[in-house]
Amino acid sequence: MSLKVEVEQKVLSANDRLAAALRERWQERGVFCLNLISSPGSGKTTLLERTMERLAGRVRAAVLVGDLQTENDARRLSQYGFPVRQIVTGGTCHLEARMIEQHLPAVDRPDLELLIIENVGNLVCPSSYDLGEDAKVVLLSTVEGDDKPLKYPGIFRRARAAVFTKVDLLGLTDFDIERAEEHARTINPEILTFRLSNRTGEGLDRWVAWLEGEIARKRAAR
Amino acid sequence: MSLKVEVEQKVLSANDRLAAALRERWQERGVFCLNLISSPGSGKTTLLERTMERLAGRVRAAVLVGDLQTENDARRLSQYGFPVRQIVTGGTCHLEARMIEQHLPAVDRPDLELLIIENVGNLVCPSSYDLGEDAKVVLLSTVEGDDKPLKYPGIFRRARAAVFTKVDLLGLTDFDIERAEEHARTINPEILTFRLSNRTGEGLDRWVAWLEGEIARKRAAR
Repeated sequence: MSLKVEVEQKVLSANDRLAAALRERWQERGVFCLNLISSPGSGKTTLLERTMERLAGRVRAAVLVGDLQTENDARRLSQYGFPVRQIVTGGTCHLEARMIEQHLPAVDRPDLELLIIENVGNLVCPSSYDLGEDAKVVLLSTVEGDDKPLKYPGIFRRARAAVFTKVDLLGLTDFDIERAEEHARTINPEILTFRLSNRTGEGLDRWVAWLEGEIARKRAAR
Repeated sequence: MSLKVEVEQKVLSANDRLAAALRERWQERGVFCLNLISSPGSGKTTLLERTMERLAGRVRAAVLVGDLQTENDARRLSQYGFPVRQIVTGGTCHLEARMIEQHLPAVDRPDLELLIIENVGNLVCPSSYDLGEDAKVVLLSTVEGDDKPLKYPGIFRRARAAVFTKVDLLGLTDFDIERAEEHARTINPEILTFRLSNRTGEGLDRWVAWLEGEIARKRAAR
């Protein structure tokens, strides 16, 4: 092995190199790529269902969804008319760029505009693995505790947006959404915040509008 | 390095060897050691607060609590009269036996009966690290989704008990607790299940009774 290769391997890990190649590909093709990260049960899959319902017929999208086990999420998501592929990690606590590369052909199409990756339910490890996305989005449900941005700063630092889900349950617990947003901005002053309820539909319009704006911007920048 | 050492290292990793030594120590001293594992926001710290309130003056307990960042949990827990030590992992997604060994002297006492370890909020990685505990207990809040035992089988397979928290919120989401328990037993037919609400106190009597029974059994087996 030459010194040059050794140095390169130190600077860019295998994952980062693969992620950079994916990112370049999305740039050339004008595809907006989203990496959704949260604890189990914060509502990633349900938000995807609500989002897919609204984007059907308007955006050419595809979904890759990661889980330790089961194909449940792909089954739930496949009814909206978009190609969906489950990545079963078999115990690995996060998705890696090589998994995206491997499973992409199952959902890709030449005129793709939006690729959504739903990561394994885990607020810690997935934040360290670049998947070539344009934006990481962290979900936090309003029953999880408003101190979580301070306790899990890694993902809040790296996320473009934080989505506070289950706002229909506010008031039933001692979760203070103002405080949660303040904590998120303490960690990351630039972070966008959304408040929504997959159950009542509250806040979904703004979320979908943001997504469509990002998709249009990415296509225009080709 | 001799072949014998190499083989031993293959069979027992450094973590497992250290965990085995801790387990042996608890066996000799008659200390019951619990390892609490769940996603962020399932109510581990609040359950500990409710448990400490009830055990105060009756059991000689100590608490080690892991988080990526902040000393918030130790502050919350320190008001119940038991020694508490925060283990800030600085980004590591789980506790390891060497961290227990390192922080134990801060909370240990010769007549200790119960050591509770609150792991980092993560349903995946902590399940793979033996901390020398007598029992892993997994918490799942009833707003997280009843399919979680199937999606995160590792921890449900290894746990002695599953505690379903926030049962006061049942009916406000589509979480079906019977189905969640059934899924948990599909993964682990021997698993004990508890239903409780830290908010209303429902189910806490049975949980504390179980804990006191285990503490008594462990002391008697010295």
